[in-house]
Amino acid sequence: MTNPYDILLECSKKAALYQTTSMLLAWDQETYMPRKAIGLRSEQQQLLAHHIHQEKTSKRFAKALDALIDLETGTIKSKELSPQRRAAVREWRRDYVRAVKLPSSFVRQLTEATSEGQHAWVDAKDRSDFKAFLPHLKKILTLVRKKADILGYDDHPYDALIDEYEPETKTAELTTLLGRLKIPLTTLVKAIGAKKEPETDFLRKNYPHAKQMEFGKMLLKKMGFDPSFCRLDESAHPMCLTMHPTDARLTTRIYPNNPIVNILSVIHEGGHGLYHIGLPEEHFGTPLGEAASYGIDESQSQMWETRIGRGLPFWEHFYPELQSYFADQLASVPLEVFYPVIN
Amino acid sequence: MTNPYDILLECSKKAALYQTTSMLLAWDQETYMPRKAIGLRSEQQQLLAHHIHQEKTSKRFAKALDALIDLETGTIKSKELSPQRRAAVREWRRDYVRAVKLPSSFVRQLTEATSEGQHAWVDAKDRSDFKAFLPHLKKILTLVRKKADILGYDDHPYDALIDEYEPETKTAELTTLLGRLKIPLTTLVKAIGAKKEPETDFLRKNYPHAKQMEFGKMLLKKMGFDPSFCRLDESAHPMCLTMHPTDARLTTRIYPNNPIVNILSVIHEGGHGLYHIGLPEEHFGTPLGEAASYGIDESQSQMWETRIGRGLPFWEHFYPELQSYFADQLASVPLEVFYPVIN
Repeated sequence: MTNPYDILLECSKKAALYQTTSMLLAWDQETYMPRKAIGLRSEQQQLLAHHIHQEKTSKRFAKALDALIDLETGTIKSKELSPQRRAAVREWRRDYVRAVKLPSSFVRQLTEATSEGQHAWVDAKDRSDFKAFLPHLKKILTLVRKKADILGYDDHPYDALIDEYEPETKTAELTTLLGRLKIPLTTLVKAIGAKKEPETDFLRKNYPHAKQMEFGKMLLKKMGFDPSFCRLDESAHPMCLTMHPTDARLTTRIYPNNPIVNILSVIHEGGHGLYHIGLPEEHFGTPLGEAASYGIDESQSQMWETRIGRGLPFWEHFYPELQSYFADQLASVPLEVFYPVIN
Repeated sequence: MTNPYDILLECSKKAALYQTTSMLLAWDQETYMPRKAIGLRSEQQQLLAHHIHQEKTSKRFAKALDALIDLETGTIKSKELSPQRRAAVREWRRDYVRAVKLPSSFVRQLTEATSEGQHAWVDAKDRSDFKAFLPHLKKILTLVRKKADILGYDDHPYDALIDEYEPETKTAELTTLLGRLKIPLTTLVKAIGAKKEPETDFLRKNYPHAKQMEFGKMLLKKMGFDPSFCRLDESAHPMCLTMHPTDARLTTRIYPNNPIVNILSVIHEGGHGLYHIGLPEEHFGTPLGEAASYGIDESQSQMWETRIGRGLPFWEHFYPELQSYFADQLASVPLEVFYPVIN
């Protein structure tokens, strides 16, 4: 009989092949897919979502999992597992307990709604037409509320949902945490509002699209990325889809009369990317090769964007470079004028 | 009980979802995939190939097929099928009889070899390093010979293989057909060789990359393509991957000092594309929505490339346009000098 841990590895890696294929389809949808192809794309995504769900809830997977951990209580049964493997088994159980509650038909339905909704959102955003997106949003919200009901919760429906992104976190904790920030943040915003606004006229010049893209790629290179395992493209909303440490797809958004959006997007997504390409390749397709949580993931992008990319030392180094890319626009703008604007 | 024809439709459409997903992965591999991602890509392609094969050879599919057509002889059993449906059933049987002979493990092995071989070829081509590609070519050839043996043939191993591209064609027929062309073609080549070579100096100028791409997109637009269902990108070898009448991915190859390669590639791939986007959308995922054969497919691209794209009427119309894209390079080159060069 195959070792139960090996069965879990096999199923989990197979699920990862479907997941990364689905990610590539999503990347393509956001970057290069012709608009009319959305119908086929949605069907492909539903089929992949079905396989991911099936792989994660199969009887074979459940049986192997049950041999190593108590599915009910989460107590590890096997005494021979290394601490690493115990962690993987614990995460697999978390994932299984959630996934097995969701009927396969519901998973397909939600995938269809989000795939088509995302597409409708891009289109509606282009035309600033919220009404066109509203029916999609309503449909997705209804399904997501249903998801919370299916998954179950003690206190608040959002508890069931946030658990997917930030394991074990409760809405009540977040309310306290964010509540504590309310007064200091309001005070801060008021203090900022009372100050003189920085001069931003220099932003309103034309910063050519291709040059902005080049500058973004240069920044990524300096952050440690290389085209042999990373790309930078454009999408309606910047994102980082890392399928594997050898395939990181970052996107940015370029406004010809505001170069800062692109710069901060690239640094932010680069922060996500560095975290993901740094995950251990040998654990690809298992919880040990995945981001720990969305909070941790976002901490990496925010650290890069706000702590590094908005810092004076960063711009003391990179501002002359930016000026050389955009001499006509920035040669006469000193760092002292630029720096407050990026903050 | 579900109608057998409906079962065939369902299985065939599901196989098409895997196939079009696999096509998108192939398109991505040729256009945008970071180089190091080939390992993951090959595993994804193997999994999809496995599903395609499984869907086309499942017991459910075979049983439904057997209810409508004699699997052994190909005689249609059902008397109620429309001529269209009879044709679809006949093609499904052809496909089934071939596919069921190939073990699933062999299908995965061949997919792995071709996916990785294609990648190695692009890399070796870049460096003009045939030796780097040779082991891949040997591996693929060995597997393809094995495929011919598994499929079986009466006369020549290539009969088993060409049948996939040009149904029912035999190597002996091709030998006769191509043999008949040998003498006239040799005579023609000699006659051409005896003529004075056309003046090609104007080609050796620099034709900017972006302008060439723009010209290619303009040509496609004039051929009836629209970005809402079609893209033009670049790859090592030009190709046309049409996943659906709503999603045609054409590629071209651009040489800065020879604009003709791009022009003829675009027209050629556009010819394939027009054939594919013209296939009936309502029959997507069935033989009635597929190209009839590679020969028919290539006849469309060749008609566009040689009959139209190399014709004088075409260039009487488009040459002034080409001159306006490349005024520095072509303003002083008359059509009479350009036209022989594109022929």
